[in-house]
Amino acid sequence: MRRIITATVKDSSGVLNRVTGLLSKRGFNISSITVGASEMPYISKMTFEVDINTPVQAEQIIKQLNKQIDVIKVMDITDLQIVARELALIKIATNPTNRHEIYGIINPFRARVLDVAKNSITIEATGKTDKVDAIIDLLSPYGIKELSRTGITAFPRGRNK
Amino acid sequence: MRRIITATVKDSSGVLNRVTGLLSKRGFNISSITVGASEMPYISKMTFEVDINTPVQAEQIIKQLNKQIDVIKVMDITDLQIVARELALIKIATNPTNRHEIYGIINPFRARVLDVAKNSITIEATGKTDKVDAIIDLLSPYGIKELSRTGITAFPRGRNK
Repeated sequence: MRRIITATVKDSSGVLNRVTGLLSKRGFNISSITVGASEMPYISKMTFEVDINTPVQAEQIIKQLNKQIDVIKVMDITDLQIVARELALIKIATNPTNRHEIYGIINPFRARVLDVAKNSITIEATGKTDKVDAIIDLLSPYGIKELSRTGITAFPRGRNK
Repeated sequence: MRRIITATVKDSSGVLNRVTGLLSKRGFNISSITVGASEMPYISKMTFEVDINTPVQAEQIIKQLNKQIDVIKVMDITDLQIVARELALIKIATNPTNRHEIYGIINPFRARVLDVAKNSITIEATGKTDKVDAIIDLLSPYGIKELSRTGITAFPRGRNK
């Protein structure tokens, strides 16, 4: 099962390597990872998606990650109420006649055109993973020349109590 | 100087660890990294920002990364014509009276409201790094409760020749 795990870590050159090392040593495949600045100075946040077989394994790996140097807090947020979003850059093969057709596909997804060249356009699409998957599926018949996805970043929703 | 490096890699549990290991062993700090699916099956793309002191060092590190197992191609794209975008999730402290003020800030940035709770709203902002920095700066006075950034993903623009 795919789990979404977040880690709050100190900015240091080794911490990302320790986290990925722990996971790869145990044979877990990280299907996506994002690392960026957080609301606190010198503190970064990682979000990664990992395929883990059992809940017991997931619990163990969280415990081990929490013990790593420069790791402040690791959480499995898969089952919480979360906001999770990713961004994809998609370069689509185009010609003068089908450009409008492509705009007709991307507009309902509120994707934005970033670059128009002679034989391609590059768009930015954001959303949950399934929404990004859907727009890529719809654009595939035209020919996707380049695709680069950030992977998701996520945190729990705001509380109402 | 900050360099933007992209790596095309085979999906395997160890490749991310080898890449981050090489960089951390040499003391280079990765300020952001994104890893996600590419336009080819079983092939992922990584984009990372690293602080490297000299062009010679940058060239060396690219050479060494290219030699790693399961690494298909590594490129320093900093000086090319590129599209580079990142996504930030921002949870801002709100009260009933200042919510409209906040909408007035985020609308020109075309940021999207993802969640509204009693004492907070969560928005999604995308753009180049400096644009995302700017919206975070403008929202800071209200109180940022949570911030999670993907880091950039990037590739060269379409050619016109």
